[in-house]
Amino acid sequence: MKKCAVLSVGQEILFGHTLDTNASFFCNEMRLLGIEVAEMRTVNDEFVDIVKAITELAEVADFILVSGGLGPTPDDLTRQAIAEAAGVELVLKPELLEQIEKYFATINRKMGESNKVQAMLPETATALPNNCGTAPGVRCAVGSAVVFAMPGVPSEMKVMFAESVKPELLAESGNVEYYLKRIHLSGMGESYVGDYLKELQKAYPDLEIGTTVDHYIVTVRVSGVDTAKAEEAAALVREAFKDFVFGEDGVTLEEAIVGYLQSKGMTLALAESCTGGIIASKIVGVSGASKVLLEGIVSYSNESKIRTLGVDPEIIAEYGAVSARCAKAMAEGARSKAGADYALSVTGIAGPDGGTEQKPVGTVFFAVAAPDKTYVFKHVFPQSARNILRIFASHYTMNIMRQIVSGIECYREETPLE
Amino acid sequence: MKKCAVLSVGQEILFGHTLDTNASFFCNEMRLLGIEVAEMRTVNDEFVDIVKAITELAEVADFILVSGGLGPTPDDLTRQAIAEAAGVELVLKPELLEQIEKYFATINRKMGESNKVQAMLPETATALPNNCGTAPGVRCAVGSAVVFAMPGVPSEMKVMFAESVKPELLAESGNVEYYLKRIHLSGMGESYVGDYLKELQKAYPDLEIGTTVDHYIVTVRVSGVDTAKAEEAAALVREAFKDFVFGEDGVTLEEAIVGYLQSKGMTLALAESCTGGIIASKIVGVSGASKVLLEGIVSYSNESKIRTLGVDPEIIAEYGAVSARCAKAMAEGARSKAGADYALSVTGIAGPDGGTEQKPVGTVFFAVAAPDKTYVFKHVFPQSARNILRIFASHYTMNIMRQIVSGIECYREETPLE
Repeated sequence: MKKCAVLSVGQEILFGHTLDTNASFFCNEMRLLGIEVAEMRTVNDEFVDIVKAITELAEVADFILVSGGLGPTPDDLTRQAIAEAAGVELVLKPELLEQIEKYFATINRKMGESNKVQAMLPETATALPNNCGTAPGVRCAVGSAVVFAMPGVPSEMKVMFAESVKPELLAESGNVEYYLKRIHLSGMGESYVGDYLKELQKAYPDLEIGTTVDHYIVTVRVSGVDTAKAEEAAALVREAFKDFVFGEDGVTLEEAIVGYLQSKGMTLALAESCTGGIIASKIVGVSGASKVLLEGIVSYSNESKIRTLGVDPEIIAEYGAVSARCAKAMAEGARSKAGADYALSVTGIAGPDGGTEQKPVGTVFFAVAAPDKTYVFKHVFPQSARNILRIFASHYTMNIMRQIVSGIECYREETPLE
Repeated sequence: MKKCAVLSVGQEILFGHTLDTNASFFCNEMRLLGIEVAEMRTVNDEFVDIVKAITELAEVADFILVSGGLGPTPDDLTRQAIAEAAGVELVLKPELLEQIEKYFATINRKMGESNKVQAMLPETATALPNNCGTAPGVRCAVGSAVVFAMPGVPSEMKVMFAESVKPELLAESGNVEYYLKRIHLSGMGESYVGDYLKELQKAYPDLEIGTTVDHYIVTVRVSGVDTAKAEEAAALVREAFKDFVFGEDGVTLEEAIVGYLQSKGMTLALAESCTGGIIASKIVGVSGASKVLLEGIVSYSNESKIRTLGVDPEIIAEYGAVSARCAKAMAEGARSKAGADYALSVTGIAGPDGGTEQKPVGTVFFAVAAPDKTYVFKHVFPQSARNILRIFASHYTMNIMRQIVSGIECYREETPLE
C-alpha cells in the first residue's frame, strides 16, 4: 500500500481561526484511492519549518500533499521550501508568467509585480495548472517522494487535485479506486446497527464497514477495492434496515420526504412548538418544496395553538400544551386548515426550564395527521442542550412521518391519549 | 515566547471521518496564553509513529499537547509511547487503579480487565485527574519538553485541560493571559469595517485586531497582553459601529432580539416565505423565547399568505408574492393576527429557479410592522446557493428588525410600494 503525508502550511490554522478542512478532504480522497495517510502536519509560514517538514515527510511517505503558501506575498514560501528540500534552484518559467498574465486579463486586472513569484518553480518541478486562480501548483520529487503543492483556498485546491493530482495517484495505486457507498437511516439504534455490521464485517473481511451518527441519523459506510463485494454488502445493509433507510450518498431526510410527496402529488403542513421552525426550515431548504409544503405554523404560544390551529382550549387546560391530545389536535388543525394531505405536529419540553417529574425536559409528543387517521406518539429524548434536543426531535419525528407517508408499516408504538 | 506543539493520535482523523476540533481548541487556547504553536501533527495509533512524533516535537517545543490514545483498547498506545520517548518504564499506580475502580462504582458498572492499563503511567510521570471519564491524563518530561496527554473525547479533554494543564502553562508564560474581546455587528460591510480597523491597528500596534465574517455578521476581534489598551481599542470599535453592534463574546442576533423584547415586555410574530422557518427556529432556540414569540407562520404557498396572513389576493395577482406590497401585508397580517407588538415578514426568491430579469434570484422584500408604522425594504443578495441566500436573508432582516425594535434610527432606505 502506498503511503501519503498531508502538510498544511499557514498561520491561520495554528492560530485556531480556521479548521483545516483541506487536510480532511485529502484524507477522504486517499482512502478512496487505497492510499494510507501516514501523517498529517501543520506548520507556520516559516521557510525553515516548511523545509524541515517536507524533508522529514519525504522519508516516511511516497507522496506529500501540501496546501497553502503559494500566494504572491512574502509570507508565501512553499515553492521556495520545496526547491530547498529538493536541493535545486527556483527558476522563472516564462510560460507560467504568460499564463498568469492571461488570467489577470480575463478578470480585467493588471498583474501585480508581486505575482511574478507565482511563475517560479523549482528547477526539476512541473507546474500543476490552476484554472480557478493565479497560483499554479507544484509537482516536484524530493528524495524518493513526490510533492504535490496546491493552493490553500479549498475551491482552487479541489479542482487542481481532481484535474492534476488524482489521476497520477490513481495510476500509482494501480488504477484501483475504492468503492464507497453511504446508506442513511433513522429510527434504528446505532448499537443495533453496529451489532449487525459486526457480523457483516466477518462475512466481508476485506471491506471497510463502519457507521457515523448525527442526531438520530445513522450513516453506514461500506467501502473497499472489490466493487462487486462492496455492492453485495451494501445491498445486504439496505435489505436489513429496509424500512429505516431514507437515502444514500448524501440524500437528506427532508429531500427524501419532499421527493416522495412531490412524486405522489401530495402536500404537507407543519405545526411546530418546541422544534420551532427547524422542520419547516429543512423542508423549505429543498428546492421544489413549494409544491409540497403548503404552510408551517410555529405555534409557540397557547394562543397560537388555539387561534391558528384550532386546538380546543380545554385540551390545553386539562392536559397541557405538551400532551398527546394537544399534539393530535395541532396536527389535525394544521392539516385541515392548510388543506394538506399530511400534517406533522411536534410539542415538547426543550428545556432548560419547564420540565416536571411526569414530563421531564426531553419529553416530546408528536402526531402525523394522514387522510385516514392521526397517529400520535410520545418520545423522551435523553437530557441534552436545548438546541440539541430540538434537532433530535426534528429528525426523529420527520423520520416517522416519512415512514407513514410512504406507507411503510410504522414500527413505533402509538401513545394512548392518556 | 514559549513554544508548543499539538499532537493528535487517531486513525479516525487520518481516515477523514473526524475533523480535528481538539487541535483547533488547543491553538485558540495557546494564543490566549501567548504561547506560539510551532507545529501540529496527526499520526496513526501506531506505537513507533507516536514515539517518533513525540521525540521530534520535543526538540522544537517547550510543551506538547497530545490528545487521543488513552483508552483501554490495544490500539490505545499513547502512554506506552510517552514512556518509550522518555526512556522510562510504564508502571502500575495503585492509587490510579483505585480511582478508576471508584469511577466505575459511581456509574454502577464493574471495571473491565482492559481498563487496568489506564492505571499505568511512565515511571517519571504524574497523572492528570479525569473527572469526566476513566482515563487519567499524563504529564511527563521528554527531553527538555513537557508532554501533556489528554483523552481524545473533546468534553473530557477540555475539562482536563482547564483544570490541570492550563494553570501550569499560564504560570510558565508568566501568568500573562491575553485579553480577547469579540464584538459582533451586522448591517455594515466588511471592507468598511476593515478600513476602520486598519487605522485602529496603527494606533494600537501591539494589539491583534482582526475580523471574521459569517453570512452578514461581522465579528471584530481585539486581543493583546495589555488589557487596558485592548479594552480601550474595543471601546473605540463599539463606539464607531454603535448602531450595528448587537452583542459581544458570542451573543447571537436572536439572543439580542429576544433579550431586548423580553426586557421591554414586548412580543413578536413572524411571517416567513423564502427563509421558511429559519428565523423562527433561531428565535425559538433562545431559552425564554416563549415569552416573546407569539407565532411564526411559514407561508410558503400563496393560499397560506391569503388565508392565514390575510394578504389581499389582488396584491399577489397584481404585484406577485415577492413584492413590497406583499411583504407589507404579510407583516401587518402576522402582527394583527397574533396580537404582537412587532412582526417581521420575509418574501423572496431563493432559487435556483424562479428568478426573472426584474426579480433575479436573491431578491428579497421584507417588512417590519411596528405599533406606529410598517417599514418595508428590498435587498438583492449576491448570487449564492439556495440555503446560503436563506441565511443571508435571515441575518440581514433580523438585524434591521433589531434596529427598529430597539429604537435605533434605521439607516436603511425603505423601498417604495412600486
